[in-house]
Amino acid sequence: MINIIITAGGTTESIDQVRKITNTSTGKLGAAICKKAIEYLQNKKVDYQIHYIVSQTAIKPKLNRIDQQKVIFYEVSDTESVKHTIETIFDCYEINFFIHSMAISDFTTSHIMPIHEMAQEITRSIATEPKDKILSKVEEVLRHPKNHLGTSKKISSESDIILTMIKTPKIINLVKKHSPNIFLVGFKLLNNVEEEELVKAAKKLIDNSQCDLVLANDLKNIKDDNHQALLIKEDEIIQRCFGKEHIAKAIIDEMFEGRINI
Amino acid sequence: MINIIITAGGTTESIDQVRKITNTSTGKLGAAICKKAIEYLQNKKVDYQIHYIVSQTAIKPKLNRIDQQKVIFYEVSDTESVKHTIETIFDCYEINFFIHSMAISDFTTSHIMPIHEMAQEITRSIATEPKDKILSKVEEVLRHPKNHLGTSKKISSESDIILTMIKTPKIINLVKKHSPNIFLVGFKLLNNVEEEELVKAAKKLIDNSQCDLVLANDLKNIKDDNHQALLIKEDEIIQRCFGKEHIAKAIIDEMFEGRINI
Repeated sequence: MINIIITAGGTTESIDQVRKITNTSTGKLGAAICKKAIEYLQNKKVDYQIHYIVSQTAIKPKLNRIDQQKVIFYEVSDTESVKHTIETIFDCYEINFFIHSMAISDFTTSHIMPIHEMAQEITRSIATEPKDKILSKVEEVLRHPKNHLGTSKKISSESDIILTMIKTPKIINLVKKHSPNIFLVGFKLLNNVEEEELVKAAKKLIDNSQCDLVLANDLKNIKDDNHQALLIKEDEIIQRCFGKEHIAKAIIDEMFEGRINI
Repeated sequence: MINIIITAGGTTESIDQVRKITNTSTGKLGAAICKKAIEYLQNKKVDYQIHYIVSQTAIKPKLNRIDQQKVIFYEVSDTESVKHTIETIFDCYEINFFIHSMAISDFTTSHIMPIHEMAQEITRSIATEPKDKILSKVEEVLRHPKNHLGTSKKISSESDIILTMIKTPKIINLVKKHSPNIFLVGFKLLNNVEEEELVKAAKKLIDNSQCDLVLANDLKNIKDDNHQALLIKEDEIIQRCFGKEHIAKAIIDEMFEGRINI
C-alpha cells in the first residue's frame, strides 16, 4: 500500500472577520495530478491511498464511486491549518509521495493599525532613544506595535491603515525533515521572468527543501488550459510541458517510475 | 419602465499578481432580493430592467429564460471596477432604485515593503528633521515610501512585510450625488456589537449617504440561512427580519410600496 499526499488550491489568511487574503489558485492542476495518479496506479494494480489536502473554493477532482474510496479529502483554510493537517497525516500514515501543488500564503496578518496611530507610536518611541538605536526601535514598533487592533475586530473604514504581515512557516520544509524517504514534488511560480531565473529559483527550492522534482512555471505562461511549465530534477530541465494534462502526466510518470513496488 | 441596480457579492483588491484581499460575502442575499424584486414586479405587471452588479465568485440568482431577459449581469472585481460600472450604467439608464448589498472593500493596496526597509527609510528620513516635524515625516513615509515594491511584482517571501492600505471611494455616496431621486437601500454590517450601536451606525449611514432604507446586521447573527437583520428607515427600526427570504421580502415590499407607477 502506498500513501500519497497531494495539496491543491490556495490558502486564505484572515485580516479580520470579513476580510481575508487569498492566494489565487484554481486547484485545477492538483485535480489533474490526482486523476493521473489514480489512472497510473490502477493500471499497475498497486494498492494506494491518496490524502488530498485542498482549500474550500478549489476545484476538486471528479471521482467515480470506486475512486472516491481511495481519496481522503482534508479541507483547509490558512497556512496553519495546512501544517496541522499534514502533521496529523504524518502521525497516522507512512507517506511515500508528496505533491505540494497548493499555493500557500507566505504571510499571515500580524497587526493592523491606522497609519497616523502607527506614526504617533513610532514618534513617541524614538523620542528618548540615542541616535544609533533609532533604526532598531522603529523596526521593533513596526513589527510589534502596542496599540494595534486585533484581527477579531472588524476594521473601521475611517482611516488609511498599515498591515504588518509576518512570514508563515515553510510547509514544504516539513516534509523531508519528517522523513527523508518521502519523494517530494515542489512547485515554483514566478511572474514575468527569464527562463534562466525561473530555473535558478527552482534549483534553490530543490536545495532548500530537498525536492526530488520541481514543476516551475511563470504566470505569463499560464492562461487557463494553455499552461506551460518546466519539470526540473537536480540541475536539469527534464521536460517541457504544455497544458495541465501534460504537466500532470509528466510529474506522475517521473515520480512513480521504478518507485511503486513498495 | 423602471430601472433597478442591485449590487451583490464581495469585492477583491489585488496585493500582487497572485495574492488578493477579498471581502467575504456569498452573494446569497443579493440573489434573494433579485428574485423577490422580479416576483413583485411581475405580479404588478410593471415593466422593468434589473442591472445586477456582481463579483465573479458570488452566488448568482437562478433565473428562468424569461426572467433572464430582464436582468443584465455586470461582473466586477475591485472597488474601482464597481465604481466604473455604476458610472457607465448611470450614463445609459435612468435608475429608479439602487440596492447596494455588495461588500465593498474599504481599502486598496497602496504600497508593499519589507519591514526592515521601511524602518530604514523612516530612520533616514527623520535624521535631519527638527523634533516638531518628525511625526508628520514618519506619517509621510508610511503613506508614500519611496522604495516600495509595485503591485505588479510578486512579493518575495524572504522577509516580513508592511502593507499600506488606503481608503477606496465610498461607492454608496455616488448614488444620491448622481440623482437625489433614486431610492437607495444601504447595508450595514458590524461584528458583535449591541443593537443600539448597530442602529446608530445605520443612522450614520443614512445621514452620510442619504439612504432611504438601511438593512443593518451583525456577523454574530448571521449563520448562513439563520440570518437576522433590522430594517431601518429614518430614525426607526421598521422591521425585524429572520432569514434571507424574509429580509429580501421586507426590503422589496418597503421599497416598491407606492413607488412603482413610474
